[in-house]
Amino acid sequence: MVMKKALKKKIGQKAVAKAKMAGQGLMKKDKKAGAKKRVLRKKAKPAIKKNKATVKKTNPKGTVKKRMSPRMAKGLTAKALKALSGKYVYYFGDGKADGNGKMKELLGGKGAGLAEMTNAGVPVPPGFTITTEVCTLFYENNMSIPRTIEEEIMTNLKRVEKSTGFKFGDSTDPLLVSVRSGAKFSMPGMMDTVLNLGLNDGTVEGLAKKTNNERFALDSYRRFISMFGNVVMGIDKSDFEEIIEKEKGKYRLKFDTELSSENFRNIINEAKHLIKKKAGEEFPQDPIAQLQRARDAVFKSWNNPRAITYRRLNDIPSGLGTAVNIQTMVFGNMGNNSATGVGFTRDPSTGAKKFYGEYLINAQGEDVVAGTRTPNHISELSKEMPRVYKQLVDITSKLEKHYRDVQDFEFTIQDGKLYMLQTRTGKRTAFAAVKIAVDMVKEKLITEQEALFRTDPEQLNQLLHRNIDPAAKSVIIAKGLAASPGAASGMVVFNADDAVRFAEDGKQVILVRHETNPDDIHGMNAANGILTSRGGMTSHAAVVARGMGKCCVAGCEEIKVYYSEKNFIVGEYIVKEGDTITLNGSTGEVMLGEVATIEPELSGEFAIFMSWADKYRRLKIRTNADIPRDAEQAMKFGAEGIGLCRTEHMFFAEDRLPLVREMILAENEQKRSEALDKLLPFQKKDFKGLFEVMRGYPVTIRTIDPPLHEFLPNREDLMVEIAEMKARKDETELIKEKQKLLNRVQELHEFNPMLGHRGCRLGITYPEITEMQARAIFEAACEVAKTGKPVVPEIMIPLVGMVSELRNQKEIIIRVAEEVMKEYKIKIKYLIGTMIEIPRGALTADEIAKEAEFFSFGTNDLTQMTFGYSRDDAAKFLKHYLEQGILAKDPFITLDQIGVGQLVKMGTEKGRSIRKDLKVGICGEHGGDPASIEFCNRLGFNYVSCSPFRVPIARLAAAQATLGSSDYTSK
Amino acid sequence: MVMKKALKKKIGQKAVAKAKMAGQGLMKKDKKAGAKKRVLRKKAKPAIKKNKATVKKTNPKGTVKKRMSPRMAKGLTAKALKALSGKYVYYFGDGKADGNGKMKELLGGKGAGLAEMTNAGVPVPPGFTITTEVCTLFYENNMSIPRTIEEEIMTNLKRVEKSTGFKFGDSTDPLLVSVRSGAKFSMPGMMDTVLNLGLNDGTVEGLAKKTNNERFALDSYRRFISMFGNVVMGIDKSDFEEIIEKEKGKYRLKFDTELSSENFRNIINEAKHLIKKKAGEEFPQDPIAQLQRARDAVFKSWNNPRAITYRRLNDIPSGLGTAVNIQTMVFGNMGNNSATGVGFTRDPSTGAKKFYGEYLINAQGEDVVAGTRTPNHISELSKEMPRVYKQLVDITSKLEKHYRDVQDFEFTIQDGKLYMLQTRTGKRTAFAAVKIAVDMVKEKLITEQEALFRTDPEQLNQLLHRNIDPAAKSVIIAKGLAASPGAASGMVVFNADDAVRFAEDGKQVILVRHETNPDDIHGMNAANGILTSRGGMTSHAAVVARGMGKCCVAGCEEIKVYYSEKNFIVGEYIVKEGDTITLNGSTGEVMLGEVATIEPELSGEFAIFMSWADKYRRLKIRTNADIPRDAEQAMKFGAEGIGLCRTEHMFFAEDRLPLVREMILAENEQKRSEALDKLLPFQKKDFKGLFEVMRGYPVTIRTIDPPLHEFLPNREDLMVEIAEMKARKDETELIKEKQKLLNRVQELHEFNPMLGHRGCRLGITYPEITEMQARAIFEAACEVAKTGKPVVPEIMIPLVGMVSELRNQKEIIIRVAEEVMKEYKIKIKYLIGTMIEIPRGALTADEIAKEAEFFSFGTNDLTQMTFGYSRDDAAKFLKHYLEQGILAKDPFITLDQIGVGQLVKMGTEKGRSIRKDLKVGICGEHGGDPASIEFCNRLGFNYVSCSPFRVPIARLAAAQATLGSSDYTSK
Repeated sequence: MVMKKALKKKIGQKAVAKAKMAGQGLMKKDKKAGAKKRVLRKKAKPAIKKNKATVKKTNPKGTVKKRMSPRMAKGLTAKALKALSGKYVYYFGDGKADGNGKMKELLGGKGAGLAEMTNAGVPVPPGFTITTEVCTLFYENNMSIPRTIEEEIMTNLKRVEKSTGFKFGDSTDPLLVSVRSGAKFSMPGMMDTVLNLGLNDGTVEGLAKKTNNERFALDSYRRFISMFGNVVMGIDKSDFEEIIEKEKGKYRLKFDTELSSENFRNIINEAKHLIKKKAGEEFPQDPIAQLQRARDAVFKSWNNPRAITYRRLNDIPSGLGTAVNIQTMVFGNMGNNSATGVGFTRDPSTGAKKFYGEYLINAQGEDVVAGTRTPNHISELSKEMPRVYKQLVDITSKLEKHYRDVQDFEFTIQDGKLYMLQTRTGKRTAFAAVKIAVDMVKEKLITEQEALFRTDPEQLNQLLHRNIDPAAKSVIIAKGLAASPGAASGMVVFNADDAVRFAEDGKQVILVRHETNPDDIHGMNAANGILTSRGGMTSHAAVVARGMGKCCVAGCEEIKVYYSEKNFIVGEYIVKEGDTITLNGSTGEVMLGEVATIEPELSGEFAIFMSWADKYRRLKIRTNADIPRDAEQAMKFGAEGIGLCRTEHMFFAEDRLPLVREMILAENEQKRSEALDKLLPFQKKDFKGLFEVMRGYPVTIRTIDPPLHEFLPNREDLMVEIAEMKARKDETELIKEKQKLLNRVQELHEFNPMLGHRGCRLGITYPEITEMQARAIFEAACEVAKTGKPVVPEIMIPLVGMVSELRNQKEIIIRVAEEVMKEYKIKIKYLIGTMIEIPRGALTADEIAKEAEFFSFGTNDLTQMTFGYSRDDAAKFLKHYLEQGILAKDPFITLDQIGVGQLVKMGTEKGRSIRKDLKVGICGEHGGDPASIEFCNRLGFNYVSCSPFRVPIARLAAAQATLGSSDYTSK
Repeated sequence: MVMKKALKKKIGQKAVAKAKMAGQGLMKKDKKAGAKKRVLRKKAKPAIKKNKATVKKTNPKGTVKKRMSPRMAKGLTAKALKALSGKYVYYFGDGKADGNGKMKELLGGKGAGLAEMTNAGVPVPPGFTITTEVCTLFYENNMSIPRTIEEEIMTNLKRVEKSTGFKFGDSTDPLLVSVRSGAKFSMPGMMDTVLNLGLNDGTVEGLAKKTNNERFALDSYRRFISMFGNVVMGIDKSDFEEIIEKEKGKYRLKFDTELSSENFRNIINEAKHLIKKKAGEEFPQDPIAQLQRARDAVFKSWNNPRAITYRRLNDIPSGLGTAVNIQTMVFGNMGNNSATGVGFTRDPSTGAKKFYGEYLINAQGEDVVAGTRTPNHISELSKEMPRVYKQLVDITSKLEKHYRDVQDFEFTIQDGKLYMLQTRTGKRTAFAAVKIAVDMVKEKLITEQEALFRTDPEQLNQLLHRNIDPAAKSVIIAKGLAASPGAASGMVVFNADDAVRFAEDGKQVILVRHETNPDDIHGMNAANGILTSRGGMTSHAAVVARGMGKCCVAGCEEIKVYYSEKNFIVGEYIVKEGDTITLNGSTGEVMLGEVATIEPELSGEFAIFMSWADKYRRLKIRTNADIPRDAEQAMKFGAEGIGLCRTEHMFFAEDRLPLVREMILAENEQKRSEALDKLLPFQKKDFKGLFEVMRGYPVTIRTIDPPLHEFLPNREDLMVEIAEMKARKDETELIKEKQKLLNRVQELHEFNPMLGHRGCRLGITYPEITEMQARAIFEAACEVAKTGKPVVPEIMIPLVGMVSELRNQKEIIIRVAEEVMKEYKIKIKYLIGTMIEIPRGALTADEIAKEAEFFSFGTNDLTQMTFGYSRDDAAKFLKHYLEQGILAKDPFITLDQIGVGQLVKMGTEKGRSIRKDLKVGICGEHGGDPASIEFCNRLGFNYVSCSPFRVPIARLAAAQATLGSSDYTSK
């Protein structure tokens, strides 16, 4: 009901829009024409009335009128008016089509493609397309087609018969057709299809004779019956499958291929009985009735639940409707003069410019796919059928030129005659995509801008990491989130210390944890790859692994990790410490044993391709890097600055953690300051390294962010340890010592550390920490600057929700900066800005911009708080949400533009309303996500910042965002 | 510098505003007048030029011009023009004042009050007010006063001399004055004051003779010197105090009262030396110089740091400036014909209409306050000075009528003559406030509407709870947050089970915890009061205690609780289990032993008063209640529905928790459903109880909200237990059993439960839970409805961030509702709505309103997520933030209108843009906070919901919000 209303409403609007267009036309043309229009409109009225009557006739149940509101009635009438005069069926065949490739809205993607091919002189089995408007009319007209359109369909069916020489329902030369959906936007597998339509008890015998293959004809018939029975008559597929199983059981057959013609005859009879019993009517023998009912079923399938869900998830308007394509069936299995095959115009793996494909003589398309017979290489065809081969090469290379991209085509040779069944843009590897794009620019087939749209930025990932050898065999035991791309093999270890120990022994290790935390950094660093059973795409493990460019599979909930037993269990497998596994971080797969991997190769084409991306993008690309090594890597990948340096990551190094703990456990400010003084030289050294690597590019340094308890020993471990000590009656002094530590840990313990005492809240309550960090930054900057190298520090205050917080921290930093620069007798330009990562920060960005010289959107935390999702915990329900379609996309991967995006937009606009030249960037994980980059570009950001290995992806995405896809793609 | 600019800008704007006003006047008057105006404006130009010259003269340093931008110069000039013609000093005295009570902006609150009293014929010591405009001019004019104004001041000083017969600087009859600040808005204690000005080496002797009290005169002089030295010359107060201490040490004196005239002479000499040494100049003997410098110091104090902070926190514009009041000093210690006292026109404790006060013969105001002498009851004065007494009664009752409120006055009788020094609105207890308001309406002194503004809603709290007897003595050992009002005594216990056990033995208990969680509910219920060492105003303990109407002191960080030792330590005290303490939940105080308390008494006046509130309010008031007993209590307090019933609170009852755990630990849906089936009858019974109590008022029931692990045993406890069992080598089977439970607890464990798997996320992943709850609600509703009683269920889905979540849950509920109503053969009207408590929910409220029939803002969680504050953890830094002024108010107590409020506004507007009649309410803790209620009223909410004991407060706050304070208060 809702659907119907929506459709009708849409039509009503269309009528209004047309009226408006008419009105505009009136102004341009002379008044006479206007007068004419009015007359026309007057005339139309009786026509409408008449049409109403027509509708009634074609709708004998007469329910339409009752259900219609006045407005709806108006909509239908306007539509019905067009039914008298409009064109609703588009023929294609014999080198000429009524439609063309641009008419996707009216003919659907498939229909437009068939028309385009036909017009291009490609031999396509003839047929016709019933337009999407008919779908609308169908829903409006109580699920039936106005008689005038039925007539139009019959006329076109006659043309098909004439073209093919076959006849619908003829028992000698029967015309068989396929009935397929085809909407404006591809909705693969969502709607229904009926093949071999036209078969009945009579025509099946004709087909048997014609193909000289009774078994094939009967098999086709029983397939048609079950397809029709399922799609049109609503009977479960499994009911039909059961019949086959029974038949096989009766004759003790194991495979379908063993079924004889006799068996098929039995199956056909049983299937007809089933239909009679379940649907209460006979399977229809009349091909015309078959056609009408299949067509209506396809229209109905536009609104089946999975199609509705698909449209909702893909933002496809539900008012578009689907077209229906009715096309002659052709058979590649009509003898040795027939064949069927598939191919590509270039090699989809390497991108090499050579004709590529496979075929089988006397076979059906299915046989090529099923792998029951080994197909021949396409070059063989030049020997077997030289004329057809030449024609195929001609056609497909013409198609490539026509569509200006690699074509993936299907063909059938029926009785020596070549038919193209489909051509579409060919899928290819990232490697091939880059090569083909660069080649095609050289061939002057496409422009540089178009070339940049020939590969999905995400795909570049394949080129940057070591990957699983596609040829290798493997046993996949579990699948988690593809958290950080690449592939890695190694022996399993269950804690960071073991990882370090075994790695030092020269072992390749895979670190397996429930989840990781900053305590594990040294182990992650030592490991080849990381596997966690919990956490999402932005969990600690995932973020850190991506930063390190290290392979990671996260949130692999199937595996149950037992630290105490040092093993994990998944299904029937128990994997123990020392066992070897392989991770594929690009797919999330976990495999047993060592699986072969291949090296990435950044070819010359890759460099050319990336230079075009740089030429066309507007956004700057920075990187998130905490240590010089990562920064160096990012520079190699083309980074133009550091957008986020997390200073606390430096605190976890082995030589620093004791000092950090000393600082935290200090009983008063005095002792805390002493500990901080000891930390200062370390921080300074780190910053000097970064300034040097970045060679004058801006370095954004964030002051300390995580809560202090992250640096202390684990609370539960301590509790357990003390309990054990007590139970064992250990020495009281030792217990007291531990208890004292636990007490401090307890004091710092938080229920929700994410929303706790962290970020600038730390810097405000312990100003001496900010002071130390500011001093380290400026001493480092001054020392590097003194050597003549340029330095551009940008100091960033995290977790600001109120301008007063920023003001407090800014005062400290400016004071220290002035002091240090005076000491060093040098002036350095620097900026002080803030992260916008708390909803309140975005909401009050105008206030905050009074103090902030730049904004960097921390969209990880902003997403967490705007959705109320803890990224460490959300995996549990997010998976379910994505499966159920409650969420279309994981908001930690692609920025939620509707919700979180509002805050980003608001923050940017409010900030710039106060400070026109406010520098705005993003440093959350979204900074490396193409869709989110497009959004940032649209909002006028200055830069995005992402992990080093995503820099090339971001460069391409930024170029695509600047160019705007609509101008350079045919989508 | 910033300050100056702001001021100048303001003046510029003022000029514009005036020009506009002139323009408007023009339109009303005839054209002639307009012409006249234009002429006037033309004339003004040369005057401006002339004035510039004047300014230069009065500012010999000539720095003003240099610093001025063209715009600033214009501002100053316009101002300076007025300096030639305007009035800057307002005299009051002898029954006539230049100003009046309405001129607060120009004369400040104090100045306007003195003028008003003088005009009303009240004997006020004569004096004059230098206007706030002079303050502006002072800052503009390089911290000095234009000469013309200096002259105006001298003229007024002469009038004072004439009126009093004393002379400034005269050594026989010296005029002494006070110099006090006084801004438009009261800023108590923020700015400076100088008393006894006019004293010097000569006049002090005159005063000694005149008062016949050399000691008094010398004491006054030394006080003046140190006050002047501190306020005007910037010397530390402690330096002056040190001199006194030294003098006392020298003569081995213990109290100031033991100091003789001789001592004071020594002190005076030392103080003068100190000034010479520290300020580099002599203490000024010239009274005119004293006056000028004290006046300038008061102007400067407008911009001292504490005044700036105070203004920022109280939203007082910094451009207003302060006035300076110079007033004759009078002395009540000039002999037995002199006296001083304070009083109230009605009893401020009980509200009884009787003259109330105290006085001392031959004394200073200080003496009354200091308590060194016991003052007499005011009625004694009628015997001692009948004439003066009569005059006092006359004046004060006139003042009460004039100001239409109870007056708190100070008076001095100098040599038989009565002077009123101050009168202001009298502070009073809540009890008195209500009684006085009702009485005054009866007396036709004020209207009902005005009466409603005569008590702060928050104050009503005092009337609703048992309270500490103000007469009782107590030892306060700590102070936490006043989390839930009332008072309670009892023996200390440290866990919920002990609380129940001792309570069952007839003991009064106080439950002391680090924090509470849902596991503790039975203990909280058994306890008289709750004390926690952590957590804020909206921590679990605070929220639940308020809901129960039970006294609670939360976040008392001073106390260190040791569960294992069953004691807590605070300062020098160790309080053990069984020790008695008393809590004052209205102040946050923790006291040793049992302290006497008094019963609340809801007088007849209270009922009348509340009926007026109901008459004038627009907002409905609902309550947050989970069980019939609380709902009943709320109904008694006037609730009009339940705005929030937390269904999970019912799960913690002893007879249900095992079933809830069975449900959670179920290995599959089947077993979970079985457990749910067992829970159903309990939930149904609870809902029936609520529907019955609420007698047809709406009952908003929220589906399950907390994460499931809240219902399971504590994770750390289990870990410790298992460690102990292992260390003790307990039976393996037992350990395995425990380990299995721990494994499930671990699976459910979350890092940030606040942002975890809770709210509708549970209902979506476990639809059978929602189903059971829906069934319980509708079966209960149907069964109550069958008995003929009206039921109005409103089902509320928590934690909705996306409309798809609500849609999912709504479908389940509608389906179950239809089923149940069919079973019972009855139709019940119900609504399905959602909480808006996630930022994304507010941001996409237009989408959500398509499905939601009502919104209830959950501002607790919304505040947590918008600020990124965990309410269980924030106490640590929030305290610091509030102290440092980084936060003006605790956002968990008063809704942050600037940040969170934007989301509330946006949510309401977006929601109603889709559904015009959308019912909107609030059920966070803010629903009981008057300032937040005002905000909700402004946004057009339908209702607020608060804990039962806040219902009367909300009723009054809602009435005040509807009426609008500006119309009914003199503020």
